[in-house]
Amino acid sequence: MNQEGVTPTRTAGVEAAAAARSLHDRLAKPRGALGRLEELGIRLADLAGVCPPPVPEPAIVVVFAADHGVVAEGVTPWPQEVTAQMVAAFCRGGAAINVLARHAGAEVLVVDVGVAGQLERSSGVLDRKVRAGTANLAVEAAMTEDDARRALDVGADVAAGSVAEGARCLITGDMGIGNTTSAAALVAGFTGRPPAVVTGRGTGIDNATWAHKVAVIERALQRAGDETGPLRLLAEVGGLEIAALAGFVVGGAAAGVPVLLDGLIAGAAALAAAALAPGVERWCVAGHRSTEPGATAALDHLALDPILDLGMRLGEGSGAVLALPLLQAAAKVLREMATLDSLAG
Amino acid sequence: MNQEGVTPTRTAGVEAAAAARSLHDRLAKPRGALGRLEELGIRLADLAGVCPPPVPEPAIVVVFAADHGVVAEGVTPWPQEVTAQMVAAFCRGGAAINVLARHAGAEVLVVDVGVAGQLERSSGVLDRKVRAGTANLAVEAAMTEDDARRALDVGADVAAGSVAEGARCLITGDMGIGNTTSAAALVAGFTGRPPAVVTGRGTGIDNATWAHKVAVIERALQRAGDETGPLRLLAEVGGLEIAALAGFVVGGAAAGVPVLLDGLIAGAAALAAAALAPGVERWCVAGHRSTEPGATAALDHLALDPILDLGMRLGEGSGAVLALPLLQAAAKVLREMATLDSLAG
Repeated sequence: MNQEGVTPTRTAGVEAAAAARSLHDRLAKPRGALGRLEELGIRLADLAGVCPPPVPEPAIVVVFAADHGVVAEGVTPWPQEVTAQMVAAFCRGGAAINVLARHAGAEVLVVDVGVAGQLERSSGVLDRKVRAGTANLAVEAAMTEDDARRALDVGADVAAGSVAEGARCLITGDMGIGNTTSAAALVAGFTGRPPAVVTGRGTGIDNATWAHKVAVIERALQRAGDETGPLRLLAEVGGLEIAALAGFVVGGAAAGVPVLLDGLIAGAAALAAAALAPGVERWCVAGHRSTEPGATAALDHLALDPILDLGMRLGEGSGAVLALPLLQAAAKVLREMATLDSLAG
Repeated sequence: MNQEGVTPTRTAGVEAAAAARSLHDRLAKPRGALGRLEELGIRLADLAGVCPPPVPEPAIVVVFAADHGVVAEGVTPWPQEVTAQMVAAFCRGGAAINVLARHAGAEVLVVDVGVAGQLERSSGVLDRKVRAGTANLAVEAAMTEDDARRALDVGADVAAGSVAEGARCLITGDMGIGNTTSAAALVAGFTGRPPAVVTGRGTGIDNATWAHKVAVIERALQRAGDETGPLRLLAEVGGLEIAALAGFVVGGAAAGVPVLLDGLIAGAAALAAAALAPGVERWCVAGHRSTEPGATAALDHLALDPILDLGMRLGEGSGAVLALPLLQAAAKVLREMATLDSLAG
């Protein structure tokens, strides 16, 4: 991934952000009256290295799908087959992410990076399967480091390809029954917070299942050890779609486009990306605050403040794509608003 | 305003809300995973009396503009002329509300209900001027009850007319230098909270000006007395655009369409509307939480939970129109998502 020639220099970013801040103070409104929208506009100028910043469009939601061996532990009430069924639903256009992406004018691309079953070839899913799901992280490494590296490359490739085809905003999507267990384990590993603090109820589990989920994560992290590097941690307790999303974040940063993060899974992936390639988190914009505690832990660790807080916990990219119109509006304010000077004229 | 034949019966609303709740539990996602978006969808079904609810589109932002005699007290650093200048900016399409409404696909209509100066006739502003600004509420009633009634009628007429022309979502907008003083006074009057608690810094004032603003509001409310009815309170300390917005809320409810509220000015207007016509607040959806403390006081009093919380305080309808895509998405989820049943098929 070559950063030269695509991403602006850091100096250009600093200058563009300063220009955006100054422009905001001259627009036809009281200073600071647009709150977070002003900050987002300054951020986009910083990332693009130009003021006013381009509108982050077209946008693409990439839903990376994979299965998780840890479902054998009973950490979720949903059977593993649901991963493939939801992938089929994405292809038919009837899942939440399809509805919300259509509404926001974003494309949806589904990438099979590790679904356990065989998917229909005609489905329109991009086949980049690294392996047919991870091993059970409760008892052994979820995957080899080589698998993790291959999944990272899938994500980075898809990011680069999407930008090459015109995307100017990348949105993280995910599907994988059992993936909140893997994501919470990664959040605990990367942030150092106790598993019990970052583990949530995923798609909806009772107290006993939650306690078991925490115990599974504690056991896995003990096996991995304290001095584990990021690639090793990803291999030990990660998921194929989470590794791919980490690569997607790195690829988006390398290509110089903002990456709009969804909830817990995206947060875990962004932590992995930032550990593997420090600085890429600068390209991340947090779309929403998921109700999963691990999502907030990840955002805090990355110093990201989410745009929306709607009590959502669906995944798929649903919270992130809802934030897309707000991010685009932030750019349009800087591009289209009149200045105070022009009012009296 | 005749409610029959346009708004559904309450029974239809209760049934449609129950149907929406049940449908949400059958859609291809874990129960409740879309959080506030699910509640908004249920709310829209309740209001429309049908499940799935219609998408609230097309939407129109109506910006009611008027001047305030209280600017003579020095409660704001902005000269009164800015009201007319901003109206002209709305007509040229360069104000924040124009940019944000275009982005959200909403129309903008500007109504002069009480701007002090003469506006250009060719400007495209709807001329419904009741009087050329209010009197100084610090020393006398801002307007007569008859003026207030006429301004209410302007708002109700514009709401009815907008719906007659096809609008299916009404969005409150406002422009009036000095109007946060009037709005805070109304919020204090309608909620019973102390002026110092509900008074904010508006477009940006220092401590001394803020203390003076609070004192002005306290004096005005003392003059009005404790036993003041809603119309009298509106006349004593209100504004022409705020009265028009109160009528707009009542008109929207009567026509059976959701009214998306902006910040402090809309909150004050909704309080007046709910006091004049109890129950109309059911049709209100709070677009965002303004940083103005009076806005939160109004929302609390009306038991409304805002969709966005972006630290905004611009007015014009800017925060409300940013929430429009989310409200529309809530309807589309119920209309377009597949059910769990259909997944295995």
